[in-house]
Amino acid sequence: MKKHNFSPGPCILPQQVFEKASQAVLDYNGIGLSVMEISHRSKEFIQIMENAQNLALEHLGLQDKGYKALFLQGGASMQFLMASYNLLETKAAYLNTGTWSSKAVKEAKMFGEVMEVASSKDANFNYIPKNYTIPADADYFHCTSNNTIFGTQLRSLPETDVPVVCDMSSDIFSRKLDFSKFSLIYAGAQKNMGPSGTTLVVIKEDILGKVSRSIPSMLDYRVHLEKDSMFNTPPVFAVYVSMLTLEWLKEKGGISSMEKINETKADLLYSEIDRNPLFKGFVANKEDRSPMNATFNLTDESVKEQFDSMWKEAGINGLNGHRSVGGYRASMYNALPLESVQVLVDVMREAERTS
Amino acid sequence: MKKHNFSPGPCILPQQVFEKASQAVLDYNGIGLSVMEISHRSKEFIQIMENAQNLALEHLGLQDKGYKALFLQGGASMQFLMASYNLLETKAAYLNTGTWSSKAVKEAKMFGEVMEVASSKDANFNYIPKNYTIPADADYFHCTSNNTIFGTQLRSLPETDVPVVCDMSSDIFSRKLDFSKFSLIYAGAQKNMGPSGTTLVVIKEDILGKVSRSIPSMLDYRVHLEKDSMFNTPPVFAVYVSMLTLEWLKEKGGISSMEKINETKADLLYSEIDRNPLFKGFVANKEDRSPMNATFNLTDESVKEQFDSMWKEAGINGLNGHRSVGGYRASMYNALPLESVQVLVDVMREAERTS
Repeated sequence: MKKHNFSPGPCILPQQVFEKASQAVLDYNGIGLSVMEISHRSKEFIQIMENAQNLALEHLGLQDKGYKALFLQGGASMQFLMASYNLLETKAAYLNTGTWSSKAVKEAKMFGEVMEVASSKDANFNYIPKNYTIPADADYFHCTSNNTIFGTQLRSLPETDVPVVCDMSSDIFSRKLDFSKFSLIYAGAQKNMGPSGTTLVVIKEDILGKVSRSIPSMLDYRVHLEKDSMFNTPPVFAVYVSMLTLEWLKEKGGISSMEKINETKADLLYSEIDRNPLFKGFVANKEDRSPMNATFNLTDESVKEQFDSMWKEAGINGLNGHRSVGGYRASMYNALPLESVQVLVDVMREAERTS
Repeated sequence: MKKHNFSPGPCILPQQVFEKASQAVLDYNGIGLSVMEISHRSKEFIQIMENAQNLALEHLGLQDKGYKALFLQGGASMQFLMASYNLLETKAAYLNTGTWSSKAVKEAKMFGEVMEVASSKDANFNYIPKNYTIPADADYFHCTSNNTIFGTQLRSLPETDVPVVCDMSSDIFSRKLDFSKFSLIYAGAQKNMGPSGTTLVVIKEDILGKVSRSIPSMLDYRVHLEKDSMFNTPPVFAVYVSMLTLEWLKEKGGISSMEKINETKADLLYSEIDRNPLFKGFVANKEDRSPMNATFNLTDESVKEQFDSMWKEAGINGLNGHRSVGGYRASMYNALPLESVQVLVDVMREAERTS
């Protein structure tokens, strides 16, 4: 039986993507070769890569606006390094909203002055800081749009004239934003875009070439741009599955439609968290709650064993919270059906009734 | 009809690997989840990673000898950078035998003095230099064991007391070597080990910690070693398919058995190249020829069109030579059956008869 997969990532992808990918592993489009054994220089793969890049830009509304899309390797962790290697000449401003932001700050410090404009570390990152000032002379401002571990999301972005760099790993393609306000967006594929093993980097080309240091080839965005993401052998299968997922997103009506479904799923679960006396949301302010990752704890730890066996019995997977937060985390990425959230809510109600 | 796939990489993998991987994309081991949607922290994936690491060390005969195996991202191109970032304090010695060696040299120059102990660039890399001296005070000696583009292989390794770093991307697991003579071995998976998207790094731990510079987390071998290849989200599917391929290799009798089969395949093709007046091998000296990648040209370019249509009609894929060499390249990695080489040889004979 197919599980209800609330895993924080790698995570559920659309069933039709699994089916197409499974077939392509045996034979890609009837060419007598697996998608895993075609050359990255073949016309088949070049088409996959171009299609994936175009779909990514199209979904974000960034076609013909000076942006290019790359599919690189190394996840957001590599982008913490690449962003600062390529962009940080003197000083950069970072908003610290969680574990991943903190890691981004750490890597950037090797390349220049890092100013933490605000941090919610004082309360274990259970809120999003507001009313901070971004210095006008910063090379860029870096933020994390969604904090997977803590279940918070930047619902709005600060107005600033400095280039904005954003780690969107856990909420890209899940909600409408004016993406043209960002100069650099990056996202590990393994939430809303595909399997682990590739990273989408969307970059406004005019921000490059402004630092004085030499940049190693593999870390230099200009090198990858010049070769259209083919400077080295790309992760063929991960890009292919990302393309399939972006195609599915288009069939479903794109980001706008997806946002509505995601809000419905989030409303259903957060209403239950707020209503059910057995549970308590982790995030301090409701307006900071992430529709992608809902974090919550039991109000009575003595029912833990019973609740855990109940959701497991209901076919739910991946509900345990991260060790920094404890309790539970329900990740409701694009591909998670509303039905799975209903199953979880039903279990929560049943747990209340029987406790 | 399944193609005879001579692609230089990404390349053919064993059919049973394609079949198992295809099934796991739908449902991994009957757990109700695709292998692409399981958490990298799940017991299922931890077992896959450990199994892949153990098999890699076992095949190389490096278990319990102070080595660890990592599955990273970014291919050999990232290792050109990481090797020098982690190991190059003052001076390193590089043997330049082709495009990839040259790229490794280029990246290393950012970190210290690079001494090219020998190069075959003077003859478009159609031979392997011998009788060079490796300075005893070099931090390490770097070589490329097999040159995919030019079709040469280091049949023996120089004796030296400095640590040896080797890019084995295109011939790892294909022949017996005393692997304990290497301090660092790296290989992009996409030839003999798996699909593109992961890189095997086998490292002798005692060579680390000797440079004075700070190393960014994602480029620091110690960081990845400390976290057993799980510092960041690994490329789950690529590691899984690599594990399947390493299991297949074990079933087939390991590297020794594979080496015999590879020699048979290479003998069959090179004999035909040498016998058939229509063809001429690219590599100057027979002893430098690679059993993995056989490069050859037509002696009469006027038959090109006919020969090209003949091999395509026979179901052969990926035979075109790299643009730096021209002509043809037959890549005969572990998973390529002898039968496919026979089909190619038959076509070469037929081309001779009808020309």
